[in-house]
Amino acid sequence: MKFETTYKDNNYPIILKQNALAELKHYLKENEQNIVLIDQDVYRYHKDYIKEHLGQLDIKYLTIMSGEACKQLSYFESISEKLLSLNITRQSQLIAIGGGATGDFVGFLASTLLRGLDFIQIPTTLLAHDSAIGGKVGINASVGKNLIGAFHRPQAVIYDLKFLDTLPHVEVRSGYGEIYKHAILNGEAEQHKLMDVYPSIKELVQLEDIASFLKMGIETKLKIVVEDEFEGGVRKHLNLGHTFGHGLEYLTKIAHGEAVMIGILFQKVINKNKSLYDNCDSIFIFINYLKELGYPLNIINQADIELIFDYMKKDKKNIGQTIQMVLQTGESSFTIESVSKDEVIKAFSELKALIND
Amino acid sequence: MKFETTYKDNNYPIILKQNALAELKHYLKENEQNIVLIDQDVYRYHKDYIKEHLGQLDIKYLTIMSGEACKQLSYFESISEKLLSLNITRQSQLIAIGGGATGDFVGFLASTLLRGLDFIQIPTTLLAHDSAIGGKVGINASVGKNLIGAFHRPQAVIYDLKFLDTLPHVEVRSGYGEIYKHAILNGEAEQHKLMDVYPSIKELVQLEDIASFLKMGIETKLKIVVEDEFEGGVRKHLNLGHTFGHGLEYLTKIAHGEAVMIGILFQKVINKNKSLYDNCDSIFIFINYLKELGYPLNIINQADIELIFDYMKKDKKNIGQTIQMVLQTGESSFTIESVSKDEVIKAFSELKALIND
Repeated sequence: MKFETTYKDNNYPIILKQNALAELKHYLKENEQNIVLIDQDVYRYHKDYIKEHLGQLDIKYLTIMSGEACKQLSYFESISEKLLSLNITRQSQLIAIGGGATGDFVGFLASTLLRGLDFIQIPTTLLAHDSAIGGKVGINASVGKNLIGAFHRPQAVIYDLKFLDTLPHVEVRSGYGEIYKHAILNGEAEQHKLMDVYPSIKELVQLEDIASFLKMGIETKLKIVVEDEFEGGVRKHLNLGHTFGHGLEYLTKIAHGEAVMIGILFQKVINKNKSLYDNCDSIFIFINYLKELGYPLNIINQADIELIFDYMKKDKKNIGQTIQMVLQTGESSFTIESVSKDEVIKAFSELKALIND
Repeated sequence: MKFETTYKDNNYPIILKQNALAELKHYLKENEQNIVLIDQDVYRYHKDYIKEHLGQLDIKYLTIMSGEACKQLSYFESISEKLLSLNITRQSQLIAIGGGATGDFVGFLASTLLRGLDFIQIPTTLLAHDSAIGGKVGINASVGKNLIGAFHRPQAVIYDLKFLDTLPHVEVRSGYGEIYKHAILNGEAEQHKLMDVYPSIKELVQLEDIASFLKMGIETKLKIVVEDEFEGGVRKHLNLGHTFGHGLEYLTKIAHGEAVMIGILFQKVINKNKSLYDNCDSIFIFINYLKELGYPLNIINQADIELIFDYMKKDKKNIGQTIQMVLQTGESSFTIESVSKDEVIKAFSELKALIND
């Protein structure tokens, strides 16, 4: 499968298939440096596969810290210095192979080194079907995730399904969180399809039919980011579940998409309390589904809502000192509304009671 | 005087006059945070003046390290954390008051915090008439200047001539380097005007008529950056004198514009050797002029051309491993050409002999 963005200019292709890695050769720059920065764990698991497809190409390799650990300024500094010592020029190209964090980190390097290099995203997780598209790149500040970053479009996204073979359960659940979010943005039917195909963790980890849902996720995301690249309006809807989710993730260190899924649940409670869309029944069904899939709902019992709330105050969607949350108003209609501290605390207690029920 | 950029969209005004600072109030954001980051030395010299014009406004202040010292990643990290701890949002606005380094640093903060904030440039040096315009922002890597950065347009440039009153001689010479470069880009007549009005350091430091030359410099720069924002073509001409200049600056720590002026001299020698434009006579005249103005030509005797050459290899204009220099081919025509190591070393020895003559 091949998609293409539909911006006015500087469009980029998204290739989604088994052995997509073999396509990389068509996107390398001739007579310039092409440098792969690869998550060290991905490299360990897939060394032979990567050699098979890329072994003959003129590419430099740099393994980098695995996962979120790379997204620190001190590490950014050390990898910057390494790249600069290779005498890269503005014509050089970086290639990120790894999960969402790797893509965020390498994309941020590409957006700032020499005031901007080209880069290619080769996502290796379910989650990264989301983060690799749309040009958001960045690293973490000590006070919060992704607070230092940029918008920087990749030259291509090459999504090789082969990499999904080695995903641990937690990574599958994490990626599924963003897929499910995209389904919500598409309406009820898409969610039911997902729940039918993946009724429990047993089916989910087999990832049967996942390509068709990744296609749905990518198409949903593409439509939105092309319409609103810099998040002035509708792109904010992609933050469904993220306002609470980011806080939970930051404080408890659970996986991003797991936190987003619990954030979606939290948003459903707020929705209900504001009489916007969800009701008690739909929330019960959703909680049971999350339990079937093994989402770590119990983390709610250990989380401190005061700290989560403080974190939510740093969300990039906020206006002045007011917390703004994406809420659902109809089957596929959404709004962004202010939510008070009282509302957050009330919903949190309710959520606790519901999951312990 | 008021200019306006002529991009397709997102244009910004440039105000150039005495007491321009009083105009800031028209560009503040209502009901949002406006945060001034000011060079601590500028604050010390101009505290009363700033209070007089801005004292009544709802602005937060942060003094930052003076000059180039702020352009380090570790300092970027510490100021980022300070700003984030103020719970800034994407609607917040940063305001840079200081020289070129301050503008580069604050602009880079603005380009990366929360993936992009608005910012205003209030340059306080002669040099910053250049750097405040065109949207280039950035910080230094340990291996070189401005190697980490972005293109990020300001919302306004407010150039208050009042700040020039306290400039030390070295800063006047430094800024004059960029003014002179803009004059070269405009042709011989403009250079003769400058040499007539400022025949020696005595006249130069009085800055008589400087507003009209700043106007010339700003207009020259504006024309070029609007035509080629991201330095794909003609904007590279603004790097006249910078390839050698940056190396000299980095290694000897002389002021940026002083190094650029010596870089222009170096380029004239290369020009002559390549039979492109300059000749021995014009080089002699230029050397004598630089001596009259007190440019530190003697630094050439202490500089190591091997190290400068290594640095030149990191220049952002380079293609592959070839050094590219802006050279002059006619009164106001320029080209970018490869220059070999031999040519650089030969020109350097010649330059040494010429200045010691």
